[in-house]
Amino acid sequence: MRIAIDMDEVLADTHVAKRALYAARGREWDDTALRGRKMDALADDVTRAAVEAVLKDGTFFAGLEPMEGAIAAVRDLATEHEIFIATAAMEYPASCPHKFAWLQRHMPFIDPLNIVFCGDKSIVAADVLIDDNARHFERFGGTGILFSALHNMGAEAPHRLDRWTDAAALVRSL
Amino acid sequence: MRIAIDMDEVLADTHVAKRALYAARGREWDDTALRGRKMDALADDVTRAAVEAVLKDGTFFAGLEPMEGAIAAVRDLATEHEIFIATAAMEYPASCPHKFAWLQRHMPFIDPLNIVFCGDKSIVAADVLIDDNARHFERFGGTGILFSALHNMGAEAPHRLDRWTDAAALVRSL
Repeated sequence: MRIAIDMDEVLADTHVAKRALYAARGREWDDTALRGRKMDALADDVTRAAVEAVLKDGTFFAGLEPMEGAIAAVRDLATEHEIFIATAAMEYPASCPHKFAWLQRHMPFIDPLNIVFCGDKSIVAADVLIDDNARHFERFGGTGILFSALHNMGAEAPHRLDRWTDAAALVRSL
Repeated sequence: MRIAIDMDEVLADTHVAKRALYAARGREWDDTALRGRKMDALADDVTRAAVEAVLKDGTFFAGLEPMEGAIAAVRDLATEHEIFIATAAMEYPASCPHKFAWLQRHMPFIDPLNIVFCGDKSIVAADVLIDDNARHFERFGGTGILFSALHNMGAEAPHRLDRWTDAAALVRSL
């Protein structure tokens, strides 16, 4: 099976790092405030623009922590399946080399030829897409698995993955 | 129809610019020497490494000239078809932001969400792929159109595009 996997908030902990960017600028929310919502939608224009400028520079994406259990789970899936990394990068094109470096560092077992930086994920030809944004499943040709994140709590999803340790069993059940 | 289009030697004239990089280092070939062959295969190790270092930096890709007729032809195809740009960028990940800037500058009518930086193009879900490397068609799910280049002269191709002015007619004939 070919499995495409998103990066931000799925493999890399963008959420924690972005929350720190906002906190450093005096904007903090608790988990309850962030359930089903995105920080960018809650922030004021000035703070959002300041955080946006950091993301746009791209280096932010090189320093993210891996999500808990992600590396081991993907290494495990890769023994049986063809793994592609498919990450939205067109909002911040300068992030591409940094996301590439992140993958080389944390997941050297991923073939660089299997990395995809894209926008509209309907272009991804795969059997499964693991992503935290359900909108990517709408025009995707395969099966979408929603990776749980605060912002997608409450979103409808036929398949939902709460933690990486459940990935192998969920993929087997498809 | 969804048409994916490669960049190097298809939309952007990488060939001429790369030939100039080699010429500046004392390596020149005439067209006959380059028929069916790649410059990198003909160059000595030291010169190839020097050219490679320039490509690796990435800025090279921002300054390429558009291929003759490419902009008009793609603008024309975009009126009837869904166009994605699918370019191999994992050999030189630093090229991504520069390739993005090139597209913004020369083809602003392409939606940034329809840009794909990848390696193995079998991940591209499209009906047609226009590319100068026939190897990308082997595992591609749609129809490959080989865009003629010196290096692919002699390569077998069920569909071949010699110049952009022929594109609309060729696509219509599929």
